[in-house]
Amino acid sequence: MNDRTGRIDVGILGATGTVGQQFVRLLAAHPWFRASWLAASERSEGKRYSEAATWRLGGQAPADAAGAVVQACQPGRGPRLVFSALDASAAADVEPAFAKAGHVVVSNARSFRMQPDVPLLIPEINPEHLALITRQRRERGWAGAIVTNPNCATVVAAMVLGPLRTFGIRSVIVTTMQAVSGAGYPGVPSLDIVSNVIPRISGEEEKIESETQKILGSMTDGAVTPHAMVVSAHTNRVPVIDGHTETLSIGFDERPSPSAIRKALEEFRGRPQTLSLPSAPPQPIVCLDADDRPQPRLDVDLDHGMGVTVGRIRNCPVLHTKLVALGHNTIRGAAGAAVLNAELLASERIIEFD
Amino acid sequence: MNDRTGRIDVGILGATGTVGQQFVRLLAAHPWFRASWLAASERSEGKRYSEAATWRLGGQAPADAAGAVVQACQPGRGPRLVFSALDASAAADVEPAFAKAGHVVVSNARSFRMQPDVPLLIPEINPEHLALITRQRRERGWAGAIVTNPNCATVVAAMVLGPLRTFGIRSVIVTTMQAVSGAGYPGVPSLDIVSNVIPRISGEEEKIESETQKILGSMTDGAVTPHAMVVSAHTNRVPVIDGHTETLSIGFDERPSPSAIRKALEEFRGRPQTLSLPSAPPQPIVCLDADDRPQPRLDVDLDHGMGVTVGRIRNCPVLHTKLVALGHNTIRGAAGAAVLNAELLASERIIEFD
Amino acid sequence: MNDRTGRIDVGILGATGTVGQQFVRLLAAHPWFRASWLAASERSEGKRYSEAATWRLGGQAPADAAGAVVQACQPGRGPRLVFSALDASAAADVEPAFAKAGHVVVSNARSFRMQPDVPLLIPEINPEHLALITRQRRERGWAGAIVTNPNCATVVAAMVLGPLRTFGIRSVIVTTMQAVSGAGYPGVPSLDIVSNVIPRISGEEEKIESETQKILGSMTDGAVTPHAMVVSAHTNRVPVIDGHTETLSIGFDERPSPSAIRKALEEFRGRPQTLSLPSAPPQPIVCLDADDRPQPRLDVDLDHGMGVTVGRIRNCPVLHTKLVALGHNTIRGAAGAAVLNAELLASERIIEFD
Amino acid sequence: MNDRTGRIDVGILGATGTVGQQFVRLLAAHPWFRASWLAASERSEGKRYSEAATWRLGGQAPADAAGAVVQACQPGRGPRLVFSALDASAAADVEPAFAKAGHVVVSNARSFRMQPDVPLLIPEINPEHLALITRQRRERGWAGAIVTNPNCATVVAAMVLGPLRTFGIRSVIVTTMQAVSGAGYPGVPSLDIVSNVIPRISGEEEKIESETQKILGSMTDGAVTPHAMVVSAHTNRVPVIDGHTETLSIGFDERPSPSAIRKALEEFRGRPQTLSLPSAPPQPIVCLDADDRPQPRLDVDLDHGMGVTVGRIRNCPVLHTKLVALGHNTIRGAAGAAVLNAELLASERIIEFD
Repeated sequence: MNDRTGRIDVGILGATGTVGQQFVRLLAAHPWFRASWLAASERSEGKRYSEAATWRLGGQAPADAAGAVVQACQPGRGPRLVFSALDASAAADVEPAFAKAGHVVVSNARSFRMQPDVPLLIPEINPEHLALITRQRRERGWAGAIVTNPNCATVVAAMVLGPLRTFGIRSVIVTTMQAVSGAGYPGVPSLDIVSNVIPRISGEEEKIESETQKILGSMTDGAVTPHAMVVSAHTNRVPVIDGHTETLSIGFDERPSPSAIRKALEEFRGRPQTLSLPSAPPQPIVCLDADDRPQPRLDVDLDHGMGVTVGRIRNCPVLHTKLVALGHNTIRGAAGAAVLNAELLASERIIEFD
Repeated sequence: MNDRTGRIDVGILGATGTVGQQFVRLLAAHPWFRASWLAASERSEGKRYSEAATWRLGGQAPADAAGAVVQACQPGRGPRLVFSALDASAAADVEPAFAKAGHVVVSNARSFRMQPDVPLLIPEINPEHLALITRQRRERGWAGAIVTNPNCATVVAAMVLGPLRTFGIRSVIVTTMQAVSGAGYPGVPSLDIVSNVIPRISGEEEKIESETQKILGSMTDGAVTPHAMVVSAHTNRVPVIDGHTETLSIGFDERPSPSAIRKALEEFRGRPQTLSLPSAPPQPIVCLDADDRPQPRLDVDLDHGMGVTVGRIRNCPVLHTKLVALGHNTIRGAAGAAVLNAELLASERIIEFD
Repeated sequence: MNDRTGRIDVGILGATGTVGQQFVRLLAAHPWFRASWLAASERSEGKRYSEAATWRLGGQAPADAAGAVVQACQPGRGPRLVFSALDASAAADVEPAFAKAGHVVVSNARSFRMQPDVPLLIPEINPEHLALITRQRRERGWAGAIVTNPNCATVVAAMVLGPLRTFGIRSVIVTTMQAVSGAGYPGVPSLDIVSNVIPRISGEEEKIESETQKILGSMTDGAVTPHAMVVSAHTNRVPVIDGHTETLSIGFDERPSPSAIRKALEEFRGRPQTLSLPSAPPQPIVCLDADDRPQPRLDVDLDHGMGVTVGRIRNCPVLHTKLVALGHNTIRGAAGAAVLNAELLASERIIEFD
Repeated sequence: MNDRTGRIDVGILGATGTVGQQFVRLLAAHPWFRASWLAASERSEGKRYSEAATWRLGGQAPADAAGAVVQACQPGRGPRLVFSALDASAAADVEPAFAKAGHVVVSNARSFRMQPDVPLLIPEINPEHLALITRQRRERGWAGAIVTNPNCATVVAAMVLGPLRTFGIRSVIVTTMQAVSGAGYPGVPSLDIVSNVIPRISGEEEKIESETQKILGSMTDGAVTPHAMVVSAHTNRVPVIDGHTETLSIGFDERPSPSAIRKALEEFRGRPQTLSLPSAPPQPIVCLDADDRPQPRLDVDLDHGMGVTVGRIRNCPVLHTKLVALGHNTIRGAAGAAVLNAELLASERIIEFD
C-alpha cells in the first residue's frame, strides 16, 4: 500500500516496450494501483524511464513514470503484484522466477496461456477459472502465481462468443482484419502495409482456435475442460492503427434468431460489471444499429477501449448467424485486459496486499 | 472492320467514368478491337474526350482517345460491338435499347446479370452459358444481345471455385477485403477509409452469394441451373487502391487434400487459354508458395491484372479447406473481364463483324 | 441564460455537417455555453438531429443533441449567440441576415474574413481586433455582429508567427501537409489520397498568404493595417486523418537565434491564458525536444486539440530560421477556434447575455 | 561480353536488398547489360538468389536471377562493371577495394558522393563531371573507378534546377514529402506512418543542400566548383509507397516568367537523350497542365520511372518562382539512376569492355 495516495504499489516487467507503455499510461490514472516499480532489460537498467523508453503513445510519458529509474527484472524485488509486458521468449523464464519468488504475475505474454494450471482470463467470461491458481501453487510450489490474458485477436471473438454459449455453439469461422499496433514496435514495415493486406499473422490462427476453446471451457474438478466448439481462423493484417475487426460465422445447436443473439449480447454482464471494477465497461458488448458499423476509427475507443462493439447480426446461410465485431487490440486485447484481470484478483482477494 | 489497322471498331458506353477509362486504356493497345466510338451522357456529348473525362488511371489518356469527340448514347449509332461501363440505373434502359437496335452489348453493369436468359460469363468457367444468347434473342426479339461479367468480388471467388466443382462443393464462407477503386470515383470518402475498415458494401454480399451459384451452374435445356452450393459472404472495404483479397472456407462432398486442391487450381485451363485469346492469362490461377501471399500490392498485376492468385491452401477445421485469393477488381473484375468476354464472342463467331 | 444549468444558450448554424458536429461535440461538455438550438438546411428541418446528421466523429452524438429537433436557419429565432458552420456559399447570405437581426455570429466560414470591418480573430494573437465590431455595427447598421476565425491552415502558421513579430518578420515560405478532415465530408475521394499526395488545395494558398497578414496586422484608427511581411504558401493534401503539419522558413529584420525563437514561442501567453478561458490551452505553443516531432498521430490532441506544437527550430541558410509546426485542423483550425472566440467575446463583455 | 546474348556481363554488390532487387529487375530486361554476378554478404553466399533474397518488388524475381548462386563481395572476382547497392557502412570499405582491383563501381551509396575526385552524376545535368575519373585514378592509383548517383531526394530537385541555371539560381527552399520505399526494408515502421507525417529524415537535408551544389557545379581545371546557390531543405516522410514529391521556391538573378521556366524545363535535353541511352526518358522533365499534378500515384511511373514531372509553375512572392516536382525514388533516385550512369560510361567509352 502506498501511504500518500492510498494506491497499491505495482510493478511492470518490460515497461519500456509498446505494451509496457500502455501499462504505464493506464496505471498513471488508476484509482487502485500505482506503477511504482518499472523494470526492463539490462540495457535500460539505471536509466530514467524517459530516456530508456521512446514514448510512442501520443503526447509525452506521464511525469511520474518519466522520472522513474528503470530497474532490473530481478525476482523478489519490486511489489507483490507485477504486470508482465515481456515478449514470449523473456516471459518463459522471467515469469516463473517471479511467481516462485512470491509475486503475482499478471501477464500479457503467450508463454503460459495454454498451461492447464494457468488461468487464461477474461473477467467477464470465465472468472471461475481463477480457481486454477490453487492448483498452480500446489503443483508448482509457488508462493505467487501467473495469470494470463488472451491474444489480442482471441479476446474479441471470445467476448462475443461467451454470452452465446447458452445457444450451444458448435462451430465458428472467423476472419480477422488486425491493426498494425498489434505487432508492437517496430512491428510491421510500412512497405508491407501501405495500400496492402497481409493475409497471415504468424501463429495467430492457432492461438485464436485453441485459446477460445479454453476460455469458454468449463471448470470441473479443478481443471478446465475446453469448449467442444470447433474454431477456424483466417488472420489478416490491414492498414489500421488501432482496432481488430473480425467477421464471424457461427453455428449453433439451437437456431437463435438475430434478435435473440442481439438480446443475449446486449444484456450480458459479468463479474467486473457486478463488482464495478474500475476498468470495466458498463456494458461489455454494445450492438450498433448502423449497418456499416463497427468501424475501428469510429468505435475503437468506446469505454476507454475496454468495450467490444458488434454490428450486422444476421443469418448466415452456411452456419446460422453472422456478424462483425471490433475491439481495441492494445487495450482490451493487451494492457487493459491485464489491468482488469488484476482488478478482479484484488477484488476477489486472491491476492492480498499489505 | 477498320481498314487501316485491321482492328474491329468497337464502342464504349459510359466512356468517361472510371470503368470507361479502364476500357479506353485496355483497348488502346488491343490487337483485335479499336475503340473508335466513345459515348457518354449528354453533359459530355460533343466535347473532346480529354475535356469530358478527368483521367484517373495514371499518366495521360491515350492520344487517340484524348482527341476523340464524345458521342451521345444513341442506339443504332456506333459499331456493332459496344462495351457498357454504364452504372446500373442507366444500363437498365440503355443496354436493352442497344441490344434491340442490333448491338452486342458486353456489359459490366449489374442490371441484367441475374436475368435467366443473359449470360453471366467468365470465359474460363462457363463459356457454354453463351448459348443463352439464342434464347435471349428469340424471347426478346433482339437483333443484338447482352452479355455480362460478374461483380468484381464475385469473380475472384468464382474463378477459384470453378476448378473445384469436381470435388463437389457444398458450402462456401467468404470474407472480402475490397479495394477502394471498386467503388468508382469519387467513391469512398477518404475520411471513411484512412486507417479504417468499413464492414459492409451495399448489395455486394447478395451479389456474391447468387452470382457465384449462377456462374458455376450447369447449362441444361437452354437454361442455367444454379449450382446447389450455399455461399455466405462478409464484405469489407479496406484502405487498398487495387485488388480484392478474399478468405474462403469451403466444404466439399469429397474431402480433397490441400495438395489436391492446389493441383486442380494450377492445372486448370479454360477456353480462353485453349483459344489463346489476347487478354487471357496463360494460367488462370497461380498458387503462391510464400506463406504470406497473395498480397494486393505485390501480386495484383500478375498477367496484366487478369490472373487470380491463391495462397495458404490448408485444412479448415469447420468446413474442409481454407485459402486466400486475390484478383484485380477493375481489370479481372470489370473492364478486363468484359474485354475477355468480347474476345470469346468474336472467337466463337457469336458476333460476326463485317 | 439557461436557468437549469446556468449555461448560456447558443445556436449552431449548419449543425449537421462535419464542422457542425465538432461544435456539437465541443459544446456538449462546455462550462459556459449550451447548444440548445441546432439549425441546418431545409432538408433537415423538423427531423431529430440523430436522423438528420450522420455522426462521423467517433462513438455516437451526445444524447442531448441527438434528441433535439433541427430548426431552420431563420434569423431572429434562436439564441443571441450563434456559431456558424455554414459553407461559404450559404454563409454569404445567412450570416449577415443573422447579424442584422441582432445575433452575434461567430463564424468558421471564409466569406467575411477579409472584410475590413470584420475581426479575423485568434484570441492569443490579435484580441484587440475585436474593436472592429464597433465600426462594423456603425457602418452596417447591425444590432449583432460577425466575428470570424482563420482558415485551418492559416491558424497554425499565424499562431507561430504571432510571438515572433518582435523580431521583425519580413518573409515566410510555408509548405503545408494537410489532413483529409480539413476537406469535410465526403471531401477527398479515397482514390485520390491512399498512398498519394495532392499538391494543391483550391484557394488555400491565397488564404494563408493574406489572412496571416491581416491577423498579425496592427489596429490603428479603427482599422487593421496588414503586417508587411510577405508570405508564400505551397499547400498539399496528405493521407492523414487529423492535423495540419507545416514547414516554415522565416526571414527576420533581426537575426534571432534558434534558442531565442524557442524562448519567444514557449514563453508566449495571450489573453485567453490571462483570462483562463475554458478552451484555452495553458501554453499556446509547445516546443518538442525530439528531433522527429511534432507528428500528427502523436501530437495533434495536445490540450484537447487546442495547442500548437513546434519542433526542429534551426537556422535556414536561405532565410533565417526554419521549423515545423502542427495544429488540429478541425479543432484549433475550425470549431475549437470559434468556441475560443466566443469565450473571449463573452469574457470581454462584447456580447451581453440576458 | 556475353557471347550468347551479346550483352555485357555486369555484377551487383548487395544484390539481395531492396535497391539490389531494383537492379536485378531493371537489368533483367536491359539491352546492353546482363547481371551475371550477384554478390551479397557472407550470410547469403552460396545460396540461390531466390532463397537469399525475399523479393519485395511485386510478382516474382526474374527467373535467371532466381536461380543464380549468390557470390561473396570479393574484389577481383566478377565482371569489370559492378553496380553497388551496398549500404554506406559496407560501401566505405568494399567499393574502394573493388575500384583498386580494377572494377568500375557504379554506386548508389552515399559514401563517396562528396569526395572531390568522385563524379556525383546525373547524366542529363553534369556528364562533364566524368572527367573527374582521370584525376581519381591518378591520385588514388586505381585501375578501376567509383562513380556515384545522388540521394533520392536530391535527384528530383537537381533535375529541375539544372535546366534553370541559365537564369542564375541564387537560392532554393525545398520541402520534400518522401515515400516509404526510400527507407529500404524494413525501413519505416508502419506505426510511424499510417495516417502520419514524420517531419525529419536523418541526414537527408544536409545531402540535398550539398549534393545539389556539387551536381550543378562547373568543371574547371579538373575539379568541380560547387554552384554558389544556397539551398535549404525541409524533409518529411509521408504514407506513400513510391515517389518523392517536392515543393520548391527558387530565387534567380534574372526574373524569369513562369512560362520561361516552363519552356526551359520542357525543351531541356541532355547527353542521354542525344545518345539515345536505353534508360533515358525521351524528355527528362515533363510539365503537367492540370493544376493538381504531379501526384505520386498517377505520375511516378512516367517513362518507366525515369522521368521527372513538374507542375504548378507560378510566381513566388518571397523568392521568384514556385513549383512542385516529382520523381520515382527507387528508380530515378536509385537503381535506375545508376543504370543510366553506367550506360553513359559505356557509351562514352570511359569503360572499355573486352
